[in-house]
Amino acid sequence: MAAMKVHGYPLSTATQRVLACLYEKDVEFQFVNVDMIAGEHKSPNFLPLNPFGQVPAFEEGDLKLFESRATTHYIAHEYADKETQLLLPGSNKTMAVFQLWKEVEAHQFDPPSTKLVFELRYKPHFGMTTDAAVVEEYEDKLAKVLDVYEARLAESKYLACDHFTLDDLNHLPTVQYLLGSSAKKMFDSRPHVSAWVADITARPAWSKVMGMLKQ
Amino acid sequence: MAAMKVHGYPLSTATQRVLACLYEKDVEFQFVNVDMIAGEHKSPNFLPLNPFGQVPAFEEGDLKLFESRATTHYIAHEYADKETQLLLPGSNKTMAVFQLWKEVEAHQFDPPSTKLVFELRYKPHFGMTTDAAVVEEYEDKLAKVLDVYEARLAESKYLACDHFTLDDLNHLPTVQYLLGSSAKKMFDSRPHVSAWVADITARPAWSKVMGMLKQ
Ligand SMILES: N[C@@H](CCC(=O)N[C@@H](CS)C(=O)NCC(=O)O)C(=O)O
Ligand SMILES: N[C@@H](CCC(=O)N[C@@H](CS)C(=O)NCC(=O)O)C(=O)O
Repeated sequence: MAAMKVHGYPLSTATQRVLACLYEKDVEFQFVNVDMIAGEHKSPNFLPLNPFGQVPAFEEGDLKLFESRATTHYIAHEYADKETQLLLPGSNKTMAVFQLWKEVEAHQFDPPSTKLVFELRYKPHFGMTTDAAVVEEYEDKLAKVLDVYEARLAESKYLACDHFTLDDLNHLPTVQYLLGSSAKKMFDSRPHVSAWVADITARPAWSKVMGMLKQ
Repeated sequence: MAAMKVHGYPLSTATQRVLACLYEKDVEFQFVNVDMIAGEHKSPNFLPLNPFGQVPAFEEGDLKLFESRATTHYIAHEYADKETQLLLPGSNKTMAVFQLWKEVEAHQFDPPSTKLVFELRYKPHFGMTTDAAVVEEYEDKLAKVLDVYEARLAESKYLACDHFTLDDLNHLPTVQYLLGSSAKKMFDSRPHVSAWVADITARPAWSKVMGMLKQ
């Protein structure tokens, strides 16, 4: 039996973030499907795993975690010496740069991206109507963020440094959903962003996450 | 001349977060006022310090940082041995718990709190009208978060462990603004949350931040 368990839903961006990290580390884990359509994430069985009633939740022995970015952070540290190096070891100043781009994903990139994924992907998928005004508002916000990324990626191959780290990985689920929407043009029109998107979405670990969706 | 510089605006929650951390560490720093009313945070002088045109921005020698939580993280590590211990050193599993509650503040507590601060404090302050429907929506969201905090704080004196850490500190600015609004009742009705709020807002370092607002 695998030592680690991920309770999640394959279509969930936060679940995919944790899966991408586990595949990068090539560690064994068990995936427990949480049927969100049936509301299982709000059930009394699930709430002890995540009191906010959200996926994913993570277990390793006695350790119970939730919040996808806290979980990827833990996995990257616990398995630091295994396969892909997802951290940026070094002085406090070096780590500060890693931390900065981690926060940028969480506070600048993720909020407008998540709104757009909801409007442009989930709503059509579940038979709801996309709100064009909301799309316009959040595309404007995301455009400003991507302009900053374009400048950063012109001087650094990846966001934190010259190798792929958690700071890039944390973007994968929202980036992938946006690629399959009209928002793709926002990546395409920025050459460094577009090369970065092509690079990170081509990683074998990410293909494995995408493979799970087909099952 | 102080080695560290904070460019910020005293009314800004993100600025206050960094100031609280510097006062906890009792390190010397220079505060550079950014006149947000005059739009200085969007000026060509400021954008090299924070390309998102937001306060705060931080400098120490060659290191330039932004994003308040990346900045408090750096200060807590760089001055780990000075004054208040704001981290939770230990194994990867111990650090994971610290990281978890850091993410909970950022992704669960902050979004509804920031909305409420805007509706209940900034809008009246700047002569705009509070939207009661928005207040209701975000009070409902915050209530669910505070229920989780009430359970957590019944078993742990502070969010991450039995001492005050960055995970608590990062809440201070929004908590303080909400205390001066109708949302205060949401803290008052939860005994452990209410004791925690009283404790963290009584810290001398936090009083120093509040003192800057009076100048
Ligand atoms: N900040 C959380 C967000 C988790 C989250 O929003 N999960 C979604 C699926 S992607 C969910 O469970 N939504 C149901 C809900 O919020 O009730 C994380 O990163 O893990
Ligand atoms: N995630 C950023 C948020 C910074 C932020 O939103 N700052 C506000 C003041 S509290 C600001 O500069 N707003 C102006 C703007 O966004 O244009 C951080 O934590 O530093």
